[in-house]
Amino acid sequence: MPPAPESGPQVGLVVVTHGSSGACLLTAAAGLVGPLPASTSVSVELTDRFDDIVRQVERACHEVDSGAGLLILADIHGASPFRACLAMFDGTRSVEIVCGVNLPMLIKLATVSRRGMGPGEIAEIIKEVGKRSIRLGSELTGKIALPREEHH
Amino acid sequence: MPPAPESGPQVGLVVVTHGSSGACLLTAAAGLVGPLPASTSVSVELTDRFDDIVRQVERACHEVDSGAGLLILADIHGASPFRACLAMFDGTRSVEIVCGVNLPMLIKLATVSRRGMGPGEIAEIIKEVGKRSIRLGSELTGKIALPREEHH
Repeated sequence: MPPAPESGPQVGLVVVTHGSSGACLLTAAAGLVGPLPASTSVSVELTDRFDDIVRQVERACHEVDSGAGLLILADIHGASPFRACLAMFDGTRSVEIVCGVNLPMLIKLATVSRRGMGPGEIAEIIKEVGKRSIRLGSELTGKIALPREEHH
Repeated sequence: MPPAPESGPQVGLVVVTHGSSGACLLTAAAGLVGPLPASTSVSVELTDRFDDIVRQVERACHEVDSGAGLLILADIHGASPFRACLAMFDGTRSVEIVCGVNLPMLIKLATVSRRGMGPGEIAEIIKEVGKRSIRLGSELTGKIALPREEHH
């Protein structure tokens, strides 16, 4: 595989969540691995009208889109924010969505070049990293959660 | 399996994250499915000393622990917040940790009784729900991310 180009347009990143957890996640990632370039977030409130959510997502996409396409990370499948993200599949841009956003996905994005790959390829990587990151403390350390019976 | 008891102590829930995304996630879940009982969050700042993080996590655990044990959801494995959570495996309480917290885990906790099971059993359910929730928009809708080449 040729090395990823170091300049030119990169896939833009938009984190779309209920409330401001997307902004919090980007801030947390920035603190741990440095600010992620070409990234922004959309905070959806339960009182927002669906049309307004679509407009907010569109505006965010426009802000970070430099022609290489968009990766959208949404908090949960099925709710209004996700459905607003689906409106971005309008044929005018290359887009992929990953649902179930968590911090390890954003940390991974610090080391994945968004210049060498399209949104679909990056999304596959981020999906696998997100799934693998969900682990139990007992698995990771060999420590055992005391069963309920023994605890009493 | 007998029905879960409707009263008595329930497993406490603590969401521990870099910055305030844990608080945002609990607020988002409350808006979607109602407030989760016996739950709280810890916001860790990068400047916090490790001992202070341990104390914050201990205080949060104490707040929601009614004797049935604790389920801790941490944002990422390996960093200080996670290591502070490990200090809760001190043999005095029944604890399990799930790393890689996302919103679908909290939504699931609205329908899982934390009275009938211990932290280890609930954590296994939440881990699987979290993993399954990480999906691509194209998988969920049949829409295809245009490949990078075709986009230009």
